[in-house]
Amino acid sequence: MDVRTAELKEPITVAEYLFRRLHEVGVRSVHGLPGDYNLVALDYLTNSGLRWVGNCNELNAGYAADGYARVKGIAAIVTTFGVGELSTLNAIAGAYSEYVPVVHIVGYPSTVSQRNGMLLHHTLGNGDYTVFSTMSRPISCAVSLLNDPMDAASLIDHAISQCYLHSRPVYISLPTDIVEKKIEGARLKKSLDLEYPPNEGEKEDYVVAVVLKYLREATNPVILVDACAIRHRALKETHELIKTSGLPTFVTPMGKGAVDETLPNYGGVYAGSGSNAGVRKAVESSDLVLTIGSIKSDFNTAGFTYRISDLNSVDLHSSFVRVRYSEYPGVRMNGVLHKVALHLGQLKVKAGPVPNNTIPDAESKSSDPTITQAWFWPRLGQWLCENDVVITETGTANFGIWETRFPKGVTAISQVLWGSIGYATGACQGAALAAKEVGINRTILFTGDGSFQLTAQEVSTMLKLRLNPIIFIICNKGYTIERYIHGWDAGYNDVQEWDYKGIPAVFGAAKGQAQTYVVKSKEDVEKLFTDKDFSAPMSDKLRFVELHIPRDDAPEALKSTAEAAAKRNAE
Amino acid sequence: MDVRTAELKEPITVAEYLFRRLHEVGVRSVHGLPGDYNLVALDYLTNSGLRWVGNCNELNAGYAADGYARVKGIAAIVTTFGVGELSTLNAIAGAYSEYVPVVHIVGYPSTVSQRNGMLLHHTLGNGDYTVFSTMSRPISCAVSLLNDPMDAASLIDHAISQCYLHSRPVYISLPTDIVEKKIEGARLKKSLDLEYPPNEGEKEDYVVAVVLKYLREATNPVILVDACAIRHRALKETHELIKTSGLPTFVTPMGKGAVDETLPNYGGVYAGSGSNAGVRKAVESSDLVLTIGSIKSDFNTAGFTYRISDLNSVDLHSSFVRVRYSEYPGVRMNGVLHKVALHLGQLKVKAGPVPNNTIPDAESKSSDPTITQAWFWPRLGQWLCENDVVITETGTANFGIWETRFPKGVTAISQVLWGSIGYATGACQGAALAAKEVGINRTILFTGDGSFQLTAQEVSTMLKLRLNPIIFIICNKGYTIERYIHGWDAGYNDVQEWDYKGIPAVFGAAKGQAQTYVVKSKEDVEKLFTDKDFSAPMSDKLRFVELHIPRDDAPEALKSTAEAAAKRNAE
Repeated sequence: MDVRTAELKEPITVAEYLFRRLHEVGVRSVHGLPGDYNLVALDYLTNSGLRWVGNCNELNAGYAADGYARVKGIAAIVTTFGVGELSTLNAIAGAYSEYVPVVHIVGYPSTVSQRNGMLLHHTLGNGDYTVFSTMSRPISCAVSLLNDPMDAASLIDHAISQCYLHSRPVYISLPTDIVEKKIEGARLKKSLDLEYPPNEGEKEDYVVAVVLKYLREATNPVILVDACAIRHRALKETHELIKTSGLPTFVTPMGKGAVDETLPNYGGVYAGSGSNAGVRKAVESSDLVLTIGSIKSDFNTAGFTYRISDLNSVDLHSSFVRVRYSEYPGVRMNGVLHKVALHLGQLKVKAGPVPNNTIPDAESKSSDPTITQAWFWPRLGQWLCENDVVITETGTANFGIWETRFPKGVTAISQVLWGSIGYATGACQGAALAAKEVGINRTILFTGDGSFQLTAQEVSTMLKLRLNPIIFIICNKGYTIERYIHGWDAGYNDVQEWDYKGIPAVFGAAKGQAQTYVVKSKEDVEKLFTDKDFSAPMSDKLRFVELHIPRDDAPEALKSTAEAAAKRNAE
Repeated sequence: MDVRTAELKEPITVAEYLFRRLHEVGVRSVHGLPGDYNLVALDYLTNSGLRWVGNCNELNAGYAADGYARVKGIAAIVTTFGVGELSTLNAIAGAYSEYVPVVHIVGYPSTVSQRNGMLLHHTLGNGDYTVFSTMSRPISCAVSLLNDPMDAASLIDHAISQCYLHSRPVYISLPTDIVEKKIEGARLKKSLDLEYPPNEGEKEDYVVAVVLKYLREATNPVILVDACAIRHRALKETHELIKTSGLPTFVTPMGKGAVDETLPNYGGVYAGSGSNAGVRKAVESSDLVLTIGSIKSDFNTAGFTYRISDLNSVDLHSSFVRVRYSEYPGVRMNGVLHKVALHLGQLKVKAGPVPNNTIPDAESKSSDPTITQAWFWPRLGQWLCENDVVITETGTANFGIWETRFPKGVTAISQVLWGSIGYATGACQGAALAAKEVGINRTILFTGDGSFQLTAQEVSTMLKLRLNPIIFIICNKGYTIERYIHGWDAGYNDVQEWDYKGIPAVFGAAKGQAQTYVVKSKEDVEKLFTDKDFSAPMSDKLRFVELHIPRDDAPEALKSTAEAAAKRNAE
């Protein structure tokens, strides 16, 4: 024990300090892969109350961490220097893009090796030990390089707080010789401060008054809830306003799942020209659209097809508010929403559309047994249960889900802005684990055959952890979303035909651990949805469904969005 | 047709120009995945004489391109903006680290969308379209952003030439609105200049004289061939020297496969304390070690355990020569090697060790049927054929292969410096395809169960392309190389047990397209190696072998290297 260690009141290793902080903010399982630069650190997980996941590869681990964070509020992933961390960059960039808090811990070579520029494995061979952290900077809201035990604790606290408060990834390097260095553990007695700083009072009141003025003047105001209401944790205040006001409330595709869809004033998904029937008219004829946490990306707006005048807009964000053309920087939505709900007064409420899960006439009257996208997604809505976690892959699934009205408490996960195919299967592993930790029974994945092939092996991790999600593989012979953009019959949009139902067994499902289904007709779907074993919330089986839908079929919203994308690519 | 196009003598689209240049330098197959920002470009592959591979994911595609380049000299991969390109960064970094020429083409949003900072899918949502190319800069020897048809051709020519000459990856952005812009095709009549500039004559002669002086004075000189002799294309000149001089010649682990191992003066693998019997003594007692293209990384030197004095060293590199402590910058090895061989004169040649594929006594006399690493690798050497392509994964395989003496013409592929697990399976797809293109019959992969799980789905791509490699999965219950570094019985070094032999069928092998084998004893191996169907060079079957070796068994060289790594991590 050196002199400095002797002075510590409650000596604790850097690794344990880090892991206990993660535990404090709600992490219970850590994703990632072992690598020789992180092995010793992994020994400290269990004592800190954390479980090691051990994914099949780092990209999948990153997606899984993202899915875990969307259910539990924050997640962590451990990779190894160079090879491991670069493999997960796409997932971390996705978390940055979509505001998902993921702590990325990278096992580094020892500080001695770094200083000496040693020619070690997992390096570029040029002695540069800063190159990979530099690559991560633009996709991290904080980078903490733990090269000295003296400031390790404060750098760890800074990174984890920033991760939570900004709801974005952070990067922490953990060199092999720092892992077991002793630092002051007494510091852990004081919890991290994760409260958002309140708005300046007078400024907030001013903005609230302006918002109320326009709300009260409007003849048919509506509320539109988007991604940042979820990601910046404003759902409580959002619901106060929705319930108190009774205003017709809509969600964007990225906001799907933000709002209790069983509320009488819930109106459906608004996405410009890709909107549900009746929704477009209700929103675009409104003389005041109050949006909460909007991200107006191409896929979230069906190709920038909003028709809402700025003069009819009030936009609440995590760091500013805009009313018509007036901007109020530094005002966070949460406080404003709360006060607006509290002081609403009399509003003019015009009833909006009421979405349901009714099958469209053309489908319900058809005698064709073929499963169609237009038929399936509302039918799914009839089968979903309260509190289900529903993950939809970029492709037909995350457009199709617009047509599904959710029961109360459903968590919806998709990656509308970043849109990395393969995401959903990895995210499903993390989400299912997080759901289990918080007592949610059903996690349900919808992915396509093309997308599934990118990250298929994470089914193995689900089996290893005894997770029991319900997995639908939409078998439609490749990348249907790409076909709608370009290359209808092009070979590059085809994929190798797999025996999907054979996957769980090959990835090591024990006898009775997984149940597989092949569903090729509407009747098959009906049977499946009424099969009690299949639907059972407490099932101890991973359920794996081949859902066959024609190659060329797609939800209407996908068709119009893809058309817009194709046009923009050519312009 | 605009005015500028009318002035072109032979108008050609930017995409076709790019692809025809790739064809010119030897690319016949392009790896990658479709994405909406690259779809239109893919339409131009076929007319340019290129085949589209269509991998399962981008990391695998990058590994495959690396493997293809190691067989054919250069490779190309097409990804899509953001999501696709980031997924393959680890593979590109590996190619950079290990000097493998891979042209990375990224489909970009249109230049209009970029200029306007549009909030498109696959972006970070901040309007920054330079962030991903910036991340690729430190792992690319050239970055060409094709934002203007005026300089597209010269930027393409620059990138491809640099890729070839520096033997490292380059990055080319191809925005959707640039793909079909017309540029001057007549420029293609002049081939790219891919000749290395010759050394300045007088300087080269001076260096040659110095090298010869020390060579002639030495009493027992030896030659040591390393990675850069392969990667910087000096094998012809290297063999001139080996054959003319008759000097005992050794290879490093990364140089394995560089030298014709059937030459009488081939002596085996030198890696300091991890060397074959007799080799260490021969090299370290030499008073002149002439190394060609060395990379003295930890895993290439069994943990920095060389004992060769600088006073006994002549090092030839791609950009400089060092004789004892004297450096000669700007002198490339190729010319020096050629002249040294030409003017050798009388050298003192002391016979070195002669490696063979004899099973060690302890193994051959043992009645234990268990397959051991010490037994397997020399036994493999007896079975290999001329011109086989042999890929070994970082782990027991790429250490074990040190004990295998190759027949003539074997290409060995592994990733000793970068060491990204999962690499080998992806690389096998690319190598097998390249081998088929150049008329090589057998591509043989050795990977571990843990490593295989990272990139397993590329077996699907092999099946799709009707490739017929021989795949050995070393089933030893997880990450054995990690166990030797830390965590002998730790759960994080275990992996889920898969039904590996079921993999080809699940990934869509047609009836009779794949043959699987389970090999659990030495007798099983003997049967396998004498099975003519299995060994057949012209087999039309993908052959997939579960090779069961005990969990705790490893090649001796791995044990000592892992021990050194563990020590360095703790220092």
